[in-house]
Amino acid sequence: MKQNSQRIAPLHPVLYEEIVNRALLEDLGRTGDITTDAIVCAGDRAAAKIIARGPGRIAGTDVARSAFLRLDSGILFDVVTRDGQDVEAGETIAVVRGGAGPILSGERTALNFLSHLCGIATATRAIVEIVAPYPARVVCTRKTTPGLRVLEKYAVRAGGGFNHRFGLDDAVLIKDNHIIVAGSVSEAVRRVRRSAGHMVKVEVEVDSLEQLESALRENIDAVLLDNMGPEVLSEAVRRVNGRVLTEASGGVTPQTARAAAASGVDILSLGWLTHSAPALDLSLDITIGE
Amino acid sequence: MKQNSQRIAPLHPVLYEEIVNRALLEDLGRTGDITTDAIVCAGDRAAAKIIARGPGRIAGTDVARSAFLRLDSGILFDVVTRDGQDVEAGETIAVVRGGAGPILSGERTALNFLSHLCGIATATRAIVEIVAPYPARVVCTRKTTPGLRVLEKYAVRAGGGFNHRFGLDDAVLIKDNHIIVAGSVSEAVRRVRRSAGHMVKVEVEVDSLEQLESALRENIDAVLLDNMGPEVLSEAVRRVNGRVLTEASGGVTPQTARAAAASGVDILSLGWLTHSAPALDLSLDITIGE
Amino acid sequence: MKQNSQRIAPLHPVLYEEIVNRALLEDLGRTGDITTDAIVCAGDRAAAKIIARGPGRIAGTDVARSAFLRLDSGILFDVVTRDGQDVEAGETIAVVRGGAGPILSGERTALNFLSHLCGIATATRAIVEIVAPYPARVVCTRKTTPGLRVLEKYAVRAGGGFNHRFGLDDAVLIKDNHIIVAGSVSEAVRRVRRSAGHMVKVEVEVDSLEQLESALRENIDAVLLDNMGPEVLSEAVRRVNGRVLTEASGGVTPQTARAAAASGVDILSLGWLTHSAPALDLSLDITIGE
Amino acid sequence: MKQNSQRIAPLHPVLYEEIVNRALLEDLGRTGDITTDAIVCAGDRAAAKIIARGPGRIAGTDVARSAFLRLDSGILFDVVTRDGQDVEAGETIAVVRGGAGPILSGERTALNFLSHLCGIATATRAIVEIVAPYPARVVCTRKTTPGLRVLEKYAVRAGGGFNHRFGLDDAVLIKDNHIIVAGSVSEAVRRVRRSAGHMVKVEVEVDSLEQLESALRENIDAVLLDNMGPEVLSEAVRRVNGRVLTEASGGVTPQTARAAAASGVDILSLGWLTHSAPALDLSLDITIGE
Amino acid sequence: MKQNSQRIAPLHPVLYEEIVNRALLEDLGRTGDITTDAIVCAGDRAAAKIIARGPGRIAGTDVARSAFLRLDSGILFDVVTRDGQDVEAGETIAVVRGGAGPILSGERTALNFLSHLCGIATATRAIVEIVAPYPARVVCTRKTTPGLRVLEKYAVRAGGGFNHRFGLDDAVLIKDNHIIVAGSVSEAVRRVRRSAGHMVKVEVEVDSLEQLESALRENIDAVLLDNMGPEVLSEAVRRVNGRVLTEASGGVTPQTARAAAASGVDILSLGWLTHSAPALDLSLDITIGE
Amino acid sequence: MKQNSQRIAPLHPVLYEEIVNRALLEDLGRTGDITTDAIVCAGDRAAAKIIARGPGRIAGTDVARSAFLRLDSGILFDVVTRDGQDVEAGETIAVVRGGAGPILSGERTALNFLSHLCGIATATRAIVEIVAPYPARVVCTRKTTPGLRVLEKYAVRAGGGFNHRFGLDDAVLIKDNHIIVAGSVSEAVRRVRRSAGHMVKVEVEVDSLEQLESALRENIDAVLLDNMGPEVLSEAVRRVNGRVLTEASGGVTPQTARAAAASGVDILSLGWLTHSAPALDLSLDITIGE
Repeated sequence: MKQNSQRIAPLHPVLYEEIVNRALLEDLGRTGDITTDAIVCAGDRAAAKIIARGPGRIAGTDVARSAFLRLDSGILFDVVTRDGQDVEAGETIAVVRGGAGPILSGERTALNFLSHLCGIATATRAIVEIVAPYPARVVCTRKTTPGLRVLEKYAVRAGGGFNHRFGLDDAVLIKDNHIIVAGSVSEAVRRVRRSAGHMVKVEVEVDSLEQLESALRENIDAVLLDNMGPEVLSEAVRRVNGRVLTEASGGVTPQTARAAAASGVDILSLGWLTHSAPALDLSLDITIGE
Repeated sequence: MKQNSQRIAPLHPVLYEEIVNRALLEDLGRTGDITTDAIVCAGDRAAAKIIARGPGRIAGTDVARSAFLRLDSGILFDVVTRDGQDVEAGETIAVVRGGAGPILSGERTALNFLSHLCGIATATRAIVEIVAPYPARVVCTRKTTPGLRVLEKYAVRAGGGFNHRFGLDDAVLIKDNHIIVAGSVSEAVRRVRRSAGHMVKVEVEVDSLEQLESALRENIDAVLLDNMGPEVLSEAVRRVNGRVLTEASGGVTPQTARAAAASGVDILSLGWLTHSAPALDLSLDITIGE
Repeated sequence: MKQNSQRIAPLHPVLYEEIVNRALLEDLGRTGDITTDAIVCAGDRAAAKIIARGPGRIAGTDVARSAFLRLDSGILFDVVTRDGQDVEAGETIAVVRGGAGPILSGERTALNFLSHLCGIATATRAIVEIVAPYPARVVCTRKTTPGLRVLEKYAVRAGGGFNHRFGLDDAVLIKDNHIIVAGSVSEAVRRVRRSAGHMVKVEVEVDSLEQLESALRENIDAVLLDNMGPEVLSEAVRRVNGRVLTEASGGVTPQTARAAAASGVDILSLGWLTHSAPALDLSLDITIGE
Repeated sequence: MKQNSQRIAPLHPVLYEEIVNRALLEDLGRTGDITTDAIVCAGDRAAAKIIARGPGRIAGTDVARSAFLRLDSGILFDVVTRDGQDVEAGETIAVVRGGAGPILSGERTALNFLSHLCGIATATRAIVEIVAPYPARVVCTRKTTPGLRVLEKYAVRAGGGFNHRFGLDDAVLIKDNHIIVAGSVSEAVRRVRRSAGHMVKVEVEVDSLEQLESALRENIDAVLLDNMGPEVLSEAVRRVNGRVLTEASGGVTPQTARAAAASGVDILSLGWLTHSAPALDLSLDITIGE
Repeated sequence: MKQNSQRIAPLHPVLYEEIVNRALLEDLGRTGDITTDAIVCAGDRAAAKIIARGPGRIAGTDVARSAFLRLDSGILFDVVTRDGQDVEAGETIAVVRGGAGPILSGERTALNFLSHLCGIATATRAIVEIVAPYPARVVCTRKTTPGLRVLEKYAVRAGGGFNHRFGLDDAVLIKDNHIIVAGSVSEAVRRVRRSAGHMVKVEVEVDSLEQLESALRENIDAVLLDNMGPEVLSEAVRRVNGRVLTEASGGVTPQTARAAAASGVDILSLGWLTHSAPALDLSLDITIGE
Repeated sequence: MKQNSQRIAPLHPVLYEEIVNRALLEDLGRTGDITTDAIVCAGDRAAAKIIARGPGRIAGTDVARSAFLRLDSGILFDVVTRDGQDVEAGETIAVVRGGAGPILSGERTALNFLSHLCGIATATRAIVEIVAPYPARVVCTRKTTPGLRVLEKYAVRAGGGFNHRFGLDDAVLIKDNHIIVAGSVSEAVRRVRRSAGHMVKVEVEVDSLEQLESALRENIDAVLLDNMGPEVLSEAVRRVNGRVLTEASGGVTPQTARAAAASGVDILSLGWLTHSAPALDLSLDITIGE
């Protein structure tokens, strides 16, 4: 079911402007940038390049722009490498021009967003490349950094990945604990189908081939094959035989992704993409006088 | 100047309750946990253990508790391993008891906070141990995840580290770009001292021994020795000779920390602690019926 | 696909407490209830019954309670007729006891929520009864009152209905305008499938049998049969023949619902439930002295 | 006391921009309009007409514009039929031009506001016409939809009506329950006059001619004649004889309004205008390519 | 029209809790009270007295309590001198008991509210006493400290004063600039009466006896006699002769209040009460151990 | 250590825009300026001068501008006397041009900010002039008006003063109560140094020469000499002999400032500047027709 997601639809700024505002306020505190305010004069202007110090996939340029523009709407922020594109070490991601004060004061907030999101996009791209020979889509989970889910899910898309649920309300995922409460997969699915809307898909988590067989007897859309080794995964995919979507999840890392994908699963989901991907190292190199 | 920070003063909840609230809302969306709401009955109760799947230093138990209590004030959350303590793989961090519904619905938000903060504390502890033979304090930077600075700075303290500035307003750090704007270190310090309050410390970033000599001629409290190799660092520390605090910064990683600390610097600062530390792997193992 | 939704899972209060708070503030203004504050003494206590002045289906008792408790956490709010149950004119929905001041000051806000939500639940129930002989589920749309979607969707469930999408992000609905932009149904579906997550369902709006045939050639989950008369609807259902879900939408009212449902569609969606259902008339009859 | 309110002063946007923002966010959710984002390309432009599907009085065009502009400040929103004017079925209310993406994504939010407010204005106009032969002003109450009071009160003005209190704090209305607490009308008025500011008017609710006589002996500005039939109303107006303002309230509907107004009361207040007026049916007909 | 306002109805906490929360956050910053957190141990308890260092009228004890309780709901805050009562220098206003940490961390925020509001109440009481022989009510204006209007208006009531308008929306005050725009008092009143609700009073500002005569020919409720000396004021009151309320405003200070009141005006309004009253000096004397 | 702070760096608007927004909303209430909306026509334009009615130091012109622009982005606000400059009575501070409606509606909010902040700047300037012969800096405290700290601290700088701590988190101030809890100055400092970051300064409050001697034996940066008379202050300064910064605090007023400064202290801190400085009297004189 894989398709390459070259086109990255931008996020509506209304979805992240408040996040950017809060980030700026946690840096500016109660009086602003006391170093820059003391040193930079009102008329001082500057130009700066945001440069990648390592190779990576870009995500978050609009968010970074938004941070600068919130401080000074006159700043020009020209994107050189767009979201979804790749950079090598030393390449320029964006050029910033305008008042030296707001550029210096907004630098850290802008780079904190950009390096975090590029880090996720870069990690996603790496997994996508690893599993390229196989049909599996690379998908993120709800293991996101609190407060940044909308941005991190976007960064995964910029990295060539896809998104699983956005929250607890947009799809049903019946986990082991739900099955215990309900008493059986069958009863859990029955309860869910009784109330779920017709546009909601239902997935069931199974951790053995026996559970898989139980799940396949129900009216479901997907199975999450939890923490299975490559052989069991392959057998599970074989048994499903295309009747529902198959998702391999649990402990998938860059090291194990290829073997998991080789099983033929439709979906490979990794919490690692959003909770542990290292930031992409970036620098903002400023030129005074523009 | 190092002292061991065994006692971790808890954060006032007023500092993070809104952060927790937003995190819950981004998971509950517009109607809540449709899986759990469909399956769990009002009276169902549960107990659960939050267990570390790997070794680490704990931070964020109060935040995790706050997530559960925001959903149901009747939940009991007993901490087994407190913030600032260490766990081995398989050890229990906390026990949660109460309604099965809110425990299942709050699980991901609580764990997202806890695994992120434990990850930072664990990374900090690792660096602290690496540099234990030397006097250097391990310190974090402003390279934090947007929206979570107050929590991440706390996690660094729980890991045995210390905090640098909390933002742009509580201390002065004159960086290379400021020096370029001002024309010289001397002029930059002069401008800053003219406006800074008497409770504000002033640090200057230098990237060569020549710049260091210029900086030492000014009325400053600390020098940030930027991106210097171990030998240059040692020479810098020798030249400073205790007149001001010395901070090694820039590209310090677990691999290079020991050599940097061996230079005798007072402060070793790492953005890596807060922007790239991997999450600690945690699980919530639930027992229905309590 | 219809099932009776007797069990109404309560909403997490975190989803509506801020809505209640804003509603109270818009009534209390800048100094509070100047009438009650002047007349009622601190110790005055009262009991009150919330009574239906007409027959209806109840929804929103938790929200009404929340309004009173936000003013005074000592108020007792006992629900007599629970959400999802029916009342006749004159029957009691809830009993409120506590300080006379907060009961009088909170009355209007509590009743505004309750009468609005009961109105929607009552209207939904009426349609559900009308179409009871047929398989169709009664479903609401995104034509909700701004700011109250989470509550109104809940009221529809309390009325025995089901929910369509909660917003623009949790399912795909390709409308006529999207098809025009894309050039064809086929191209629109192709674009959507390229980026949509695997847990997202895809529905296509069609307004003729020709469009329906086009849509059925694509990989979709449902078709929205827009503004079709009963005969065309029946023919459409016949042609679909169970391959995808069928939804009748557009101008469905209490008058036309039965005929539309008789076509055999799976889903009958009505904006009317949430944008035009009249409020249920309620009164709060107070007894001073308790 | 009736005067025709032809001139509708616009609301300051600061009074509703946050309401609009919340409405957009409840529709865009956590990632935006996944259908439109997948189908529409960045450069696609569109023009659209907002058309009334039935006759009505317009209110809320500025709010609708604000919804589109919040998504894309480059959108042009030209009002054809201004607030306070009337349309027939099929007439155009406004023309929208700009990016196809934001027009499609903002359509539902904009129309939800507009159809709701036009519905209230239309209902108000209908009552105003019914009572045109009589002196009574048509007035709304505090029975408004939670969170939308400022907008709904405005819509009533656009419909030719007037506003009663905006909340509990801007005027005194002594109701039956207050009189019970105070012990008598006299004591209730005494308590209120002791604390109320000099710019605050005082109205007393009475439900019999006896109570009316009691109220008229006090220093009050208006009487609310609660749930009285036409004959009693007429007698009440006769007895008041212009000494204070008279307001008929309670169960006034389009059916009973004329008879109530014929009593000669100054004010006819209807909760129905804001809690049960059906929305005006609107459509946004889009033309791709502009 | 004066009556003594001995009974001070408390404000609903929902009106100020968010104000208190913001005030605490502006003091706690991004990590809290680093002094107290470092020194005070978790189990340390304390008792403290809030003592007046000078004589004054009390207002704001509930707000001060709210500040402590927001930090620690276990704190006991016993009011000794209630709002609306007077203290001499050295007298105790309240006793606080609980954790030493939150008491020390909340002290400044609580006292900032309390000293500010007591300052306003004290200033109001002083004016009330000065004008005691005359019928005039002492009234505050809209010249309040931004963000604190609800609290400052309350403090004026606690001082024995009354409130003018709460904002621009709850009463009409036609000022000189409005008259200029309208062309005449008559036209200004006509325009206002055409749109104002029936519960809204209308006051006209006049600055000469000629303007007064014009105003008295219109349908108004009060006249604001702006910046008139005692003799002109007296003449104005004589000419009004009880037909409308008379308000002396503009430059009234403790020095000029008596002479102004002697004119016989109904209302004496002073911006000074809320924009320039000095804070009441308070101290929090702590006893550790208790 | 005094230096004249001629250059007043402007505050980033992001630090106060939300404060301005709230202030406008507390004045506009739920429907806006009913007087102006009724009288002023859409096309009416005006020009106005903001004039000082007494001599003073200006602060807050950007905040005042922000209030007008929030109502109407087309308003022109030209500053004649900039922040940090002085005016005589009758001089113009700023000229406002644009729609008559927003100018009249925004006047009070803009002036409330400006007169409050100018009042603080003026009071600060007065103290600065009084102590001009001496080296002491004039410094404000945390005794600020809740919600306005960022603005009031700025106004102090505009008056030629400096800022002490911005909150409880950016510097350590060990007060008498902390010393009691810790048992001794020595222990208190030890506890603080164990956890405080390296960029945090430590000050100790002493109220006797004996306590001073104890404090000077510790590793601290400043001593706060609390409530000492001029002679004791002088002796304290003599004993400190430049080893740490000396701050005189407690009960310093315009009357006592000179004598305190004559002691030679480095810092003179006054809560009075921010909690009791009277507002500067301002007027907005409007000219219709521009």
